[in-house]
Amino acid sequence: MKKLKFGSCLPVFSNCADRYVQSGYGVNYTLAQVLERAAQVRELDGIELVGNWHINEGNFKEVTGLMKNLGIKAAMIVPDLWTQGKWGRGTFTAKDEKTRREAVAEVKMSMDMAASVDCDKIDVWLGQDGYDYAFQADYIEAWSQIKEALAECADYRKDIKICIEYKLREPRTHLFTTTAAKTKLLVNEVGKKIVGIMCDTGHAQAAGENVADAVATCNELLWYIHINDNYDQWDDDMMFGMVHTIELLEMLYWLERIGYDDYYTLDMNPYREDGIEAARECIAWVNGLRDLMFHIGYDNITEVIKTGDSTKISKMLREAICGHK
Amino acid sequence: MKKLKFGSCLPVFSNCADRYVQSGYGVNYTLAQVLERAAQVRELDGIELVGNWHINEGNFKEVTGLMKNLGIKAAMIVPDLWTQGKWGRGTFTAKDEKTRREAVAEVKMSMDMAASVDCDKIDVWLGQDGYDYAFQADYIEAWSQIKEALAECADYRKDIKICIEYKLREPRTHLFTTTAAKTKLLVNEVGKKIVGIMCDTGHAQAAGENVADAVATCNELLWYIHINDNYDQWDDDMMFGMVHTIELLEMLYWLERIGYDDYYTLDMNPYREDGIEAARECIAWVNGLRDLMFHIGYDNITEVIKTGDSTKISKMLREAICGHK
Amino acid sequence: MKKLKFGSCLPVFSNCADRYVQSGYGVNYTLAQVLERAAQVRELDGIELVGNWHINEGNFKEVTGLMKNLGIKAAMIVPDLWTQGKWGRGTFTAKDEKTRREAVAEVKMSMDMAASVDCDKIDVWLGQDGYDYAFQADYIEAWSQIKEALAECADYRKDIKICIEYKLREPRTHLFTTTAAKTKLLVNEVGKKIVGIMCDTGHAQAAGENVADAVATCNELLWYIHINDNYDQWDDDMMFGMVHTIELLEMLYWLERIGYDDYYTLDMNPYREDGIEAARECIAWVNGLRDLMFHIGYDNITEVIKTGDSTKISKMLREAICGHK
Amino acid sequence: MKKLKFGSCLPVFSNCADRYVQSGYGVNYTLAQVLERAAQVRELDGIELVGNWHINEGNFKEVTGLMKNLGIKAAMIVPDLWTQGKWGRGTFTAKDEKTRREAVAEVKMSMDMAASVDCDKIDVWLGQDGYDYAFQADYIEAWSQIKEALAECADYRKDIKICIEYKLREPRTHLFTTTAAKTKLLVNEVGKKIVGIMCDTGHAQAAGENVADAVATCNELLWYIHINDNYDQWDDDMMFGMVHTIELLEMLYWLERIGYDDYYTLDMNPYREDGIEAARECIAWVNGLRDLMFHIGYDNITEVIKTGDSTKISKMLREAICGHK
Repeated sequence: MKKLKFGSCLPVFSNCADRYVQSGYGVNYTLAQVLERAAQVRELDGIELVGNWHINEGNFKEVTGLMKNLGIKAAMIVPDLWTQGKWGRGTFTAKDEKTRREAVAEVKMSMDMAASVDCDKIDVWLGQDGYDYAFQADYIEAWSQIKEALAECADYRKDIKICIEYKLREPRTHLFTTTAAKTKLLVNEVGKKIVGIMCDTGHAQAAGENVADAVATCNELLWYIHINDNYDQWDDDMMFGMVHTIELLEMLYWLERIGYDDYYTLDMNPYREDGIEAARECIAWVNGLRDLMFHIGYDNITEVIKTGDSTKISKMLREAICGHK
Repeated sequence: MKKLKFGSCLPVFSNCADRYVQSGYGVNYTLAQVLERAAQVRELDGIELVGNWHINEGNFKEVTGLMKNLGIKAAMIVPDLWTQGKWGRGTFTAKDEKTRREAVAEVKMSMDMAASVDCDKIDVWLGQDGYDYAFQADYIEAWSQIKEALAECADYRKDIKICIEYKLREPRTHLFTTTAAKTKLLVNEVGKKIVGIMCDTGHAQAAGENVADAVATCNELLWYIHINDNYDQWDDDMMFGMVHTIELLEMLYWLERIGYDDYYTLDMNPYREDGIEAARECIAWVNGLRDLMFHIGYDNITEVIKTGDSTKISKMLREAICGHK
Repeated sequence: MKKLKFGSCLPVFSNCADRYVQSGYGVNYTLAQVLERAAQVRELDGIELVGNWHINEGNFKEVTGLMKNLGIKAAMIVPDLWTQGKWGRGTFTAKDEKTRREAVAEVKMSMDMAASVDCDKIDVWLGQDGYDYAFQADYIEAWSQIKEALAECADYRKDIKICIEYKLREPRTHLFTTTAAKTKLLVNEVGKKIVGIMCDTGHAQAAGENVADAVATCNELLWYIHINDNYDQWDDDMMFGMVHTIELLEMLYWLERIGYDDYYTLDMNPYREDGIEAARECIAWVNGLRDLMFHIGYDNITEVIKTGDSTKISKMLREAICGHK
Repeated sequence: MKKLKFGSCLPVFSNCADRYVQSGYGVNYTLAQVLERAAQVRELDGIELVGNWHINEGNFKEVTGLMKNLGIKAAMIVPDLWTQGKWGRGTFTAKDEKTRREAVAEVKMSMDMAASVDCDKIDVWLGQDGYDYAFQADYIEAWSQIKEALAECADYRKDIKICIEYKLREPRTHLFTTTAAKTKLLVNEVGKKIVGIMCDTGHAQAAGENVADAVATCNELLWYIHINDNYDQWDDDMMFGMVHTIELLEMLYWLERIGYDDYYTLDMNPYREDGIEAARECIAWVNGLRDLMFHIGYDNITEVIKTGDSTKISKMLREAICGHK
């Protein structure tokens, strides 16, 4: 059985804060300590580095040096389009041209950074591009601006893939790049070979999607995933598998079916947990549910799907989950 | 290990219709056939009879005769407060007194029917008592009307328990008796010993409740349950366990913990399934998840809850669900 | 100021039923009476005719004769892909080829019917094409099947436009054609000039969309709309404007902005209302909110959108809604 | 017409941060500057002071001195039960007794502080008391702990009212004190005259409540309100009236009806707005919607509610909102 590649976002190993406990629920760590903590999870192959939060042109060599020593790869470079107040009213869709140009420059710089650490992709999450109130956005112009900015970035260099991460809401009450289908529409309309989709399982769930359906919709355009879980209303960033157990099992089947073979990257916020333990649990859930899938049998699942018979599906899942020992 | 008592609503074995396919998705059956179909599910001990749909003063003897022949008990009698157009603008809270009196009479008649078939309880679901638009309800008066009507019914005879079934919405966009807490508040304010709560797992989920929390909130007032599953947005009446697998496992633990020992009654709408197969699957899920609970160990679960440690919880559940064979 | 064209679905004037009150909340009317009731609402220009419910090859002449006498046009012909049990497990995506062929034939027949009553479009709502449970659908194959069937219908005749109506859920727990973006993706992938989008305001809301954003996303592909309102969780089919007042005002602005000039068709289910009164109210809301828009000033709105300044938006709306008299 | 008393939370005038932009979307202000900004909104009568964030035993005299100079009263004192990591796993329901005792002490200290600034109430929001995962909480024990702690606080001194603020989720995925009904149940079970309810309009909406229904449920136990708006999924803390326009108009009617006469306190997070402008807009919306209510006529509304006739309601609201000029 194929061994998966696991990655992680760094908040998993940091002191997680929210708007109420702004000083964080845990212990403060330096970036070096955070990386050391990540390195304690042996199954991890790579991490994500977010601009401003973790890397900038000044500390880039130092950080990548630390990573080299610890044997951690860069799974993903994330341009800072959402960690500073200056992006609050939008990046590619900011009402002022200066901010729009800065945002494009940030993305290009991230592509260069990615190249310099042998990472082949960046994650463009337009988390501040959206609106909070009715009558606040020009939907048509915003969509054009996103497409133009992406096209310009895509033309900047051909060796770094641009993965568009979608989300329905938060930090704005409405974002523009909301669902798998809307992102696929965007990718098609941009029409550049190096632009694809990144699916965060929790974003899919909180956007009203069945995440298995979402990854199948992305199909060959699915270039990267974030894994976590939630209660559908919000991006709770919980441990994978603890809520949508069956739906995430189904997603693992569809990732296999569409031949996804990139990172399974943890994007959790273990506010009240030890991040190292939580990361290990997440990875164990992915492996455990995949074991369950192969125990049922990949081909058996495919056959049951062909029938569409929900009582057969029920029997198959129930026996796998309960019917043993 | 204690054997559970299983019951069923009759739509499980009937031709289920919705507002689009009003002639039903399946085959039409006579009530006699529906009962025969129910009898094919050996694990069932009793069924629910709904006024107007299944029973009335005219056919009552005939129906109960059929049941006797088939060896099926009446698990629950349900007064018709929601199957006819005349109830559409409310029963206990109708704006006209005539309808309110009729509703009380219907409930009393159901209590008599229950007594005559050795069923010790009725299910008062105020499904038409609520509102669709802002400014349509007098919330304070409606609440008083519900309390007065219930008190009058409770005084009618002392040997039949009145179980209040709650739901957030449907068929109105808003109902009055919405959640476990609101129903407990109602029961407390009515202050009659024979008034308690009936919890439908799907209603709890669609009201934004964690169903384990809901049954624990009801505690000694929980006198009856309906089991099914859904996707939180609506009362989809699906097979039990197929969506909220872990949360329903937790509910089974809490039912054990509070000493619940009445029926586990299927309230499913198998629109596109064979009802007999679907019923068997539901029952098998309940038994299967309870097996899983005892496999983990009731006391072990109690200990883990005491720690509140989510990575321990994760390990416990993950190993039980995936880590075997 | 331009006069709008209003249409209506016929359940507005019929006896509305749901799964609890299957005999309906109101009075039964013959189809002739329903049409006469529709004719009493003078502002209506046309109605929708649904296959099986209202028309078939047998009664088609009679029905259209009645309409002629009453001076009502056919605003839309709706192929029956969702009113009979035989469609319950899908039409274009049914697991059996026979059903898939029948569904395509039904659509073609509807196109012919439309042509014969000078109606230039049909509404393809794939309400039974989806899934209820995980592992029940082959998402990739289903998507191909929908595209192929639509392409075949589009090639059947060139004079009838095919409008795809989208919805997230109901009657299945999940449908395939879910959102404006997914439908636009479908239309693009089908690649036929006569295939476009139909947006039901309530479907958009219940799919997590801001409906103004949705119609702007459709833009030149928006060929038809259904108007109603709801509480976001479900397709409540309420009177227009009673919940999402400001968001629907915004949608009216965007319909003006994208130059939409087809029917504003009421798709309400006035279970507990008089349909004639409810229809008049809906139409009055559309006209009233448009008056409000022009009172604020179309160009003033456009300017405020350019600023993206939410306190200015607040002032503009607040003064229009409250600050007068 | 009665003049309302307006209050405000201080984040309205501060630099609002979230988990992405932890340094805030705006400008950093000292507490003195924040108070000066609040003082610029002439309609404000009082503000809320949160323990740890704004006040502690050390700075209490200084802060209240500043307030005196600016002519601002303390509308509410909020014990810190949710701003520090030490509360992350609960306060009254923490698994360890030490934290539970600390929490009770914090509340008592807040009562003393309130008394010393002539503020007659405190706001107990148990925002960290809940759970994130299934099997993490002992629902029954937690409920007992909350009741015991509240009873002890209520016995500490008789001159300070304790208002329980409820919320469904955030910062935990599930809280214990979730809805108006559950809080009323709690208040009843605690049984102390100085314990009542505080309703935040946005919390009510995000808990699936119609906020007019919620305040009517609280009725004479409603001692304080927070006003803001959101899109039902989350506590977006937006400007009042911009989403639930009609439902908030209905709430203003019911506040009048139940005789509510305490503060209307702004609890907004104007991340991307100028807080002073946003506060003025909120207040103007409250006053504007109340003008609309009196324009329609309080007694006329009462009459329409008695009919329960939704087309009459529609006409009443539509004419008030659109039918003018």
